[in-house]
Amino acid sequence: MTLRALVFDVFGTVVDWRSSVAREVAAAARRIGIETDGLALADAWRAEYVPAMDRVRRGDLPWTTIDVLHRAALDALLPRFGLAALDEAARQALNRAWHRLDPWPDSVAGLRRLRHCYTLATLSNGNVSLLANMAKQARLPWDVILSAELFRHYKPDPEVYDGACRLLDLPPGQVMMVAAHNGDLHAAAARGLATAFVARPTEYGPTQTRDLVPDRTWDVVRTSFAGLADALGC
Amino acid sequence: MTLRALVFDVFGTVVDWRSSVAREVAAAARRIGIETDGLALADAWRAEYVPAMDRVRRGDLPWTTIDVLHRAALDALLPRFGLAALDEAARQALNRAWHRLDPWPDSVAGLRRLRHCYTLATLSNGNVSLLANMAKQARLPWDVILSAELFRHYKPDPEVYDGACRLLDLPPGQVMMVAAHNGDLHAAAARGLATAFVARPTEYGPTQTRDLVPDRTWDVVRTSFAGLADALGC
Repeated sequence: MTLRALVFDVFGTVVDWRSSVAREVAAAARRIGIETDGLALADAWRAEYVPAMDRVRRGDLPWTTIDVLHRAALDALLPRFGLAALDEAARQALNRAWHRLDPWPDSVAGLRRLRHCYTLATLSNGNVSLLANMAKQARLPWDVILSAELFRHYKPDPEVYDGACRLLDLPPGQVMMVAAHNGDLHAAAARGLATAFVARPTEYGPTQTRDLVPDRTWDVVRTSFAGLADALGC
Repeated sequence: MTLRALVFDVFGTVVDWRSSVAREVAAAARRIGIETDGLALADAWRAEYVPAMDRVRRGDLPWTTIDVLHRAALDALLPRFGLAALDEAARQALNRAWHRLDPWPDSVAGLRRLRHCYTLATLSNGNVSLLANMAKQARLPWDVILSAELFRHYKPDPEVYDGACRLLDLPPGQVMMVAAHNGDLHAAAARGLATAFVARPTEYGPTQTRDLVPDRTWDVVRTSFAGLADALGC
């Protein structure tokens, strides 16, 4: 079946959240005269992500955006990192670090190539405004911003993958999910989407153990968006 | 209040649906050896638009996309224009004329300027895939595709304007509705959005009588997107 659209996981697949957040954490700490381990806080912050979304997915929390989940996690973590003194304005600004994540070095050039051949959309658990702000700052050339927020379901709920195909008005076999996470691809494949695994072996730092390799035969397996474009003949 | 985002009506405000649809109608007719008045069919087709949406807005029809409403109207109109012989493939292709509308001459350059200063989004009754396909073909530089389809309400229902502000995560006073239609601006203003009227005096052809001038004091009144950018100091 002819592929028409590529939908991308964003955090970790398109952008390097860990380095970006760590840098902003360290800068915010320095502004109040404190040295802290930005990478450790970034890792701890990100570790709150899945359990927080799972509370929404189970219905323990009503629909709550990632911006709001991030902020609650940040407030809970700051004391442990000696940063309880960060005031409201500084916390708001730091929470928006997730709107300003740097792309991996190959992301923008690869997306520019792929955009000539396909409709490119995000398909992220990040809220729409976060993804739009990030795209504007990082010059990510999306055709459409699709987000869990539009479906009020977080990945890997099937409603997200089904909803993306419905809004793109394409059968799932004409839509390819691109992700650095096997779990995302399993969920997409279960809804009939094509799959591309792009390895990001330092997303969680130099000692990463998860998602280093595909755990099943995906349609495409590469290590960069340039490689993805090559594989798709684009 | 600082303006952060501009949301645009699309049909008539950004693109010239009448000339574009008329051209495709005439071409489709010629392919089956028939001369027809493309402009008259375009006008009749567009005239079905508001009553069809109103059936959805009143709840007489369940949620139905513009693509589907357009197709039903086309099937009903073709016999009157001597085009009952158009086959299924030709009808499908002609219905997609609405995905390939040409921008007004000032649209793309004006949007490119405005994009440096603001987040730019569609806020159209067109479905997401229609707007995305149109943007890709016409090179409309949107940051976000927002559509009535996301809210399952058609303009001028308040849910559309409220939903746009919620997804952009902005208070309505930081969002400006840009439209060539006074009715759209009345509805946007009632929800607290800023308003810009951009006159498109030939949208309905050379004898247009409606929406030639603002019918109330909008925040900005201009006759092109270049004029809008000038007015906003962008």
